Amino acid sequence: MNPKLLETVRQLSEYSSFKHLCNGHHPSEPMPSLPVLEEIVRLTRALVFPGYFGNSTIDTDTIAYHTGVNVERLATLLSGQIKAGICFDAAGCPPQDLAQTAGELACTFIGRLPELRRTLQKDVVAAYNGDPAAKSHGEVIFCYPGLKAIFNYRMAHALLEMGVPVIPRIITEMAHSETGIDIHPGAQIGEYFTIDHGTGVVIGETAVIGNNVKMYQGVTLGAKSFPLDKDGNPIKGIQRHPHIGNDVIIYSNASILGNITIGDGAVIGGNIWVDTDVPAGARILQRR
Amino acid sequence: MNPKLLETVRQLSEYSSFKHLCNGHHPSEPMPSLPVLEEIVRLTRALVFPGYFGNSTIDTDTIAYHTGVNVERLATLLSGQIKAGICFDAAGCPPQDLAQTAGELACTFIGRLPELRRTLQKDVVAAYNGDPAAKSHGEVIFCYPGLKAIFNYRMAHALLEMGVPVIPRIITEMAHSETGIDIHPGAQIGEYFTIDHGTGVVIGETAVIGNNVKMYQGVTLGAKSFPLDKDGNPIKGIQRHPHIGNDVIIYSNASILGNITIGDGAVIGGNIWVDTDVPAGARILQRR
Amino acid sequence: MNPKLLETVRQLSEYSSFKHLCNGHHPSEPMPSLPVLEEIVRLTRALVFPGYFGNSTIDTDTIAYHTGVNVERLATLLSGQIKAGICFDAAGCPPQDLAQTAGELACTFIGRLPELRRTLQKDVVAAYNGDPAAKSHGEVIFCYPGLKAIFNYRMAHALLEMGVPVIPRIITEMAHSETGIDIHPGAQIGEYFTIDHGTGVVIGETAVIGNNVKMYQGVTLGAKSFPLDKDGNPIKGIQRHPHIGNDVIIYSNASILGNITIGDGAVIGGNIWVDTDVPAGARILQRR
Amino acid sequence: MNPKLLETVRQLSEYSSFKHLCNGHHPSEPMPSLPVLEEIVRLTRALVFPGYFGNSTIDTDTIAYHTGVNVERLATLLSGQIKAGICFDAAGCPPQDLAQTAGELACTFIGRLPELRRTLQKDVVAAYNGDPAAKSHGEVIFCYPGLKAIFNYRMAHALLEMGVPVIPRIITEMAHSETGIDIHPGAQIGEYFTIDHGTGVVIGETAVIGNNVKMYQGVTLGAKSFPLDKDGNPIKGIQRHPHIGNDVIIYSNASILGNITIGDGAVIGGNIWVDTDVPAGARILQRR
Amino acid sequence: MNPKLLETVRQLSEYSSFKHLCNGHHPSEPMPSLPVLEEIVRLTRALVFPGYFGNSTIDTDTIAYHTGVNVERLATLLSGQIKAGICFDAAGCPPQDLAQTAGELACTFIGRLPELRRTLQKDVVAAYNGDPAAKSHGEVIFCYPGLKAIFNYRMAHALLEMGVPVIPRIITEMAHSETGIDIHPGAQIGEYFTIDHGTGVVIGETAVIGNNVKMYQGVTLGAKSFPLDKDGNPIKGIQRHPHIGNDVIIYSNASILGNITIGDGAVIGGNIWVDTDVPAGARILQRR
Amino acid sequence: MNPKLLETVRQLSEYSSFKHLCNGHHPSEPMPSLPVLEEIVRLTRALVFPGYFGNSTIDTDTIAYHTGVNVERLATLLSGQIKAGICFDAAGCPPQDLAQTAGELACTFIGRLPELRRTLQKDVVAAYNGDPAAKSHGEVIFCYPGLKAIFNYRMAHALLEMGVPVIPRIITEMAHSETGIDIHPGAQIGEYFTIDHGTGVVIGETAVIGNNVKMYQGVTLGAKSFPLDKDGNPIKGIQRHPHIGNDVIIYSNASILGNITIGDGAVIGGNIWVDTDVPAGARILQRR
Repeated sequence: MNPKLLETVRQLSEYSSFKHLCNGHHPSEPMPSLPVLEEIVRLTRALVFPGYFGNSTIDTDTIAYHTGVNVERLATLLSGQIKAGICFDAAGCPPQDLAQTAGELACTFIGRLPELRRTLQKDVVAAYNGDPAAKSHGEVIFCYPGLKAIFNYRMAHALLEMGVPVIPRIITEMAHSETGIDIHPGAQIGEYFTIDHGTGVVIGETAVIGNNVKMYQGVTLGAKSFPLDKDGNPIKGIQRHPHIGNDVIIYSNASILGNITIGDGAVIGGNIWVDTDVPAGARILQRR
Repeated sequence: MNPKLLETVRQLSEYSSFKHLCNGHHPSEPMPSLPVLEEIVRLTRALVFPGYFGNSTIDTDTIAYHTGVNVERLATLLSGQIKAGICFDAAGCPPQDLAQTAGELACTFIGRLPELRRTLQKDVVAAYNGDPAAKSHGEVIFCYPGLKAIFNYRMAHALLEMGVPVIPRIITEMAHSETGIDIHPGAQIGEYFTIDHGTGVVIGETAVIGNNVKMYQGVTLGAKSFPLDKDGNPIKGIQRHPHIGNDVIIYSNASILGNITIGDGAVIGGNIWVDTDVPAGARILQRR
Repeated sequence: MNPKLLETVRQLSEYSSFKHLCNGHHPSEPMPSLPVLEEIVRLTRALVFPGYFGNSTIDTDTIAYHTGVNVERLATLLSGQIKAGICFDAAGCPPQDLAQTAGELACTFIGRLPELRRTLQKDVVAAYNGDPAAKSHGEVIFCYPGLKAIFNYRMAHALLEMGVPVIPRIITEMAHSETGIDIHPGAQIGEYFTIDHGTGVVIGETAVIGNNVKMYQGVTLGAKSFPLDKDGNPIKGIQRHPHIGNDVIIYSNASILGNITIGDGAVIGGNIWVDTDVPAGARILQRR
Repeated sequence: MNPKLLETVRQLSEYSSFKHLCNGHHPSEPMPSLPVLEEIVRLTRALVFPGYFGNSTIDTDTIAYHTGVNVERLATLLSGQIKAGICFDAAGCPPQDLAQTAGELACTFIGRLPELRRTLQKDVVAAYNGDPAAKSHGEVIFCYPGLKAIFNYRMAHALLEMGVPVIPRIITEMAHSETGIDIHPGAQIGEYFTIDHGTGVVIGETAVIGNNVKMYQGVTLGAKSFPLDKDGNPIKGIQRHPHIGNDVIIYSNASILGNITIGDGAVIGGNIWVDTDVPAGARILQRR
Repeated sequence: MNPKLLETVRQLSEYSSFKHLCNGHHPSEPMPSLPVLEEIVRLTRALVFPGYFGNSTIDTDTIAYHTGVNVERLATLLSGQIKAGICFDAAGCPPQDLAQTAGELACTFIGRLPELRRTLQKDVVAAYNGDPAAKSHGEVIFCYPGLKAIFNYRMAHALLEMGVPVIPRIITEMAHSETGIDIHPGAQIGEYFTIDHGTGVVIGETAVIGNNVKMYQGVTLGAKSFPLDKDGNPIKGIQRHPHIGNDVIIYSNASILGNITIGDGAVIGGNIWVDTDVPAGARILQRR
Repeated sequence: MNPKLLETVRQLSEYSSFKHLCNGHHPSEPMPSLPVLEEIVRLTRALVFPGYFGNSTIDTDTIAYHTGVNVERLATLLSGQIKAGICFDAAGCPPQDLAQTAGELACTFIGRLPELRRTLQKDVVAAYNGDPAAKSHGEVIFCYPGLKAIFNYRMAHALLEMGVPVIPRIITEMAHSETGIDIHPGAQIGEYFTIDHGTGVVIGETAVIGNNVKMYQGVTLGAKSFPLDKDGNPIKGIQRHPHIGNDVIIYSNASILGNITIGDGAVIGGNIWVDTDVPAGARILQRR
């Protein structure tokens, strides 16, 4: 190795050169691990949709074996990542009994998987019913990016509700990379939710979506502007995204912005820019 | 493993909890496998574009060895997945001689690869000629997402024409995930087709595209609305997407919707919403 | 293997059937390799953002070990790929001392990593300050697709400046696939650059962007039209994309097209189509 | 690739150059696979000795999951190898319903695993009781090469009894490579069998060993001479190895040769050459 | 899965069918893992003999990087296996602070590696000086099975001295499988020790070997007989193997048995059976 | 990482602590790599015995593809290892044009593979004819350790004849580890050579063996004593092992020592110690 490279190693290893990258994470705990989190998503998909992900057979006799092995592994990996997530965020004082807490949270999450399956099944039904190109429920599970993004969102939202830091955001960003659909785990989304095609969809942190909502590619539920603090930086965590009622359809590339309300049963046309309330049952269309 | 997890295993393994997810696939056959289908796409790319994908040398003496080994493996894997695709869709009665049928279909598909290479070469030429940033044909093969999406589409369309269920949709969705370009395998697309940048492009199931068409990122060839059956669900399989003539250019984020016709040589400007026929040679532009 | 497959192997291996796909690369050198380039990106991320990518611990004592091992491996792999890149493009006459040249270029690139880290840290700060949903700098590094796309762009731009052919384009396209953000390595981008959500962003080859610029998903900095040569093909390499000043904000899905200038401090609203100069400080908004 | 290598490829691929290596195996069936057989041995060990091989936890709640997954995989792999074994040996006419037959044989073998566990447990007890260096039953399972060789022998003998060709010999040879102990699967060996250290032990095809026999490293139970046929080649399959009674101890490097009988309770000293019958209870020792 | 296999899974998973295989290990700790212990041996070899094992370059500048990364990983893996070893043996009451104890023991072991390197270097010198076929010290490290067996023995003996249960025996058995040389970790062996060829060598638990001893293949330092307890089982742990003085040569296949002494400078001929003391300087040869 | 480990890293990385382990190899070339040499042996076995090793199908149509791919890979890997072998031994001055020399040597070796196949086929025939337990030629190839050891010996001997340093010894030692049979690559061995069972066989560097020789486990062809130089160290490279004539049989555990001659057709009994010439046709047997 030549002297230039040795010098580069030295510079890259100097504390002062990377200390600003650190997050105040607990020094003796590892950081969250992207490859492990990817395996966690794979395992969760294999548990919720057996045969489609993971082992490609469904046999009513042997499914318990695969489920058991997968649950055991998921519990181990998820405990570790929850621990890493808690330490990533902790301001110097990680909670007592961290390993036990993380284990219990992992266990709580896994305990919700049967319910998660029931909820996602409704999303499958909604996608199938809403798309003339869909040949079967199974095709939706295999091929619809919307379902994959909703899957990760529902996983991540459950973890966020349990107070797990940073991990939920990583999980939804994995779906964003996979599908082009960017749903913040903080959003609240009802049942029978569908996104068709989906590339470019953005659903912000404080968005609220009712039941039986359908949207197409490129739809944004975004913030319009956000108040700044005295240093000119945005104030974190303020309600700034739309409320979408039940039974709403939003066509492709529509942008719905700000803390506004779209009433039940409204239809928002494609390529529309909406930044004021829309009454229930209204149809807002593109003018030519 | 604690009792809560054991109980979760039990719930997730109960037949009633996942029976609605099943697709009526033949119980003793495996489901299609996403990792195997990914390897099938990799092998097909390596066969069609030697040196670019798979083994990174092209040597006119040794290419036959690599081609032979890859064809043998592709035949094996593809037979298996075609079988799984047929059984995924079968309503209780898989055809006699399934393994033989699947083997013959795989063989037919592979037999079309030389022609697929010729067709894709034309798409490469079109991309190179149409983009001032393209430095060489080789750069197009390596770097242009449009070409990768068209690759998977042409693969999938060939399989669909041979009557293989579900597998074609999975293959185009893989390209959608990789490129942000969503082309339904049922679409009919002519020669010298180019998509530049491509993120957000959607081309629907019944779209028809002529020769020498070029489109940019965010273009939608979609359905405008679709007739419902007596239960209020969309009727499957109806012609509902545009016909695009020859020599058409469609600029970024244009939405072309419904069973309409865009005439030969037309130019559709960016961010345009089109839902009526456009005559040959017309230029439809964004008004400011 | 049946006769049909043997015949297909023969056809696919015939020189005449693939010679047009070749790029005039040096016959005894391998082509660039996508899996190796993926590992190069992974190693570079692990070096620049230790703990986040690669090994998930940061320990001020051991970081030098991991850095040293990664630098050694990166130097080896990158030399090989730079060599392959040079040979890919060479018109018959690869430079003398190719291996040594490639080794020195790899070394030069690695020597710039400390500076690359400093630059990217500014991009992290900009993203954190500009987004109320961002909880910490660390979350930006882990979860923000904009940062990943900018990372690959800055890597690729450095290689392009050193004269390495084709490899830079492959590296930015990898980020495009991962994030939906397509930045050409030839673009020139200042400090404190942020892209939020990002899916569908396109930044063309001759675009120039000042400091402290922020943009949202779906923004295009594109060409409007390009002069053709006497054969009707676009002339390569002409200046055809916008100049964006300092402190500019561009909202989602805005299209800014052609060799125009957006002045310092301008704000471009969402879904806007801009093809003429915009003065400093102007606010261009969507009309309803 | 230079012409010399191309010519070598041609020569090595010529049928006449390898036809004598073929075994008359069925042309469209694969040969037995050593890596798959290694995995079969690993899976069988994991099933019989859970926690020691394979997954390193034993948990009375989760063992059924791991056992189920392993049994499913073992059944698949073993069916395939039994099929390959049958076709390897078949003189042109593989049995009808080969796949089904192989599946049933695999199933029969797996059905014997509980009994195999009971038998091997007795071998563990014998090794522990007979060796002052053994600290626990568990140490015997982890560390005693004798037990590993006996394991593979008992597996292979069961398959041989079921009429599976060639596979049993491969399995015992795997233990020979691992331990230096060469037991032919055709030998008949009673319960509570121990081999200490074991390197160099040879137990021939027609040897018969009673219960509660112990032997040390380098012991041979071999043939003395064997009758030749009219072409001067040995006649296959003739009884030519010793019968060892119950409760016999054979010390290191003793050679016991030919179709002779060693009576119950006999003790054979180290480095002894024995080629005549030994009465029950006798002690045959090395003269100095 | 057919009912027979399901029933086999049930039987194999029943606690009563495997409880006798358990070792009284602590129920919530994993058992020692053979694959992890194999990696531990590989890492230790890479640390002690850099360039020969692990990374195949020795570069005085970069060796610290590889050493650091390997030490970090070894510390992690070895802590885990020491913990598993302690729990494997524990009679119901694992020590307090188990993880910390295991970590300290791993650390102590690693702290001895520089000394282990010095000792093994002497063994290399002895092998080189004693064998006319040895071309260089490096050849001894790469090719001499005797050195590999001595390596594992010296590793294992150090761990045994530190009180680690079961792991040392597994480590020497790994070398036994690799080389045919079976050295119990409890043996005490001086410096400059050589074993040539080595297959079949056995060195028992209570053997003591002086400095500068050389032995050939098939040599046994064994027990002659061992006292039984009142149940007829051997009493564990009694001194029962030979003491070998300094500067002794033992030729191939000699058996030296019992608690006897071979004096300094003695030469024991091949194929000899020795069970009484041998005076210093004596030459004991095979009679013809 | 605690300070003790950091200090150990420092010590293990100090040049003075490992300089005596270095072999005077060329500082900028890597050392030979055991894993790569293992792959070289695997590839060579797959080329010589297609279907048995590597890919488990033999198909007269596709064998050329597999052969071509394997030859290409073998040429690459073997060139690298020959280069490493030459540099390992070089006293400061590696030959000019090292890479080219190594490439040519690899090519020469591969060019001998068809002949190596013919020779090994004779060894297979000899093993089959000589063993009543052998059911077929194919069983010999799959299961006979003697054949594997002879395979590696014949490979290694060919490389040694071509002047390649150190690599041949590593290759025969790999077979020693696998089979317990230790054949020095310098030995000269005729055709139709068989070793049955084989554990413990040692064949020394200057041994010469005629045609049609058969030996059993534990046979040693060793040195009796060797002349020392003035420093008391053995003189390297002197003729010191037996010459074995044609048609000789040597039974198990016989030791034949020194520079003596065993005449054609002799039979050496088991457990015999022979250190003087044996006339042709003699039968030397164990006395009881």
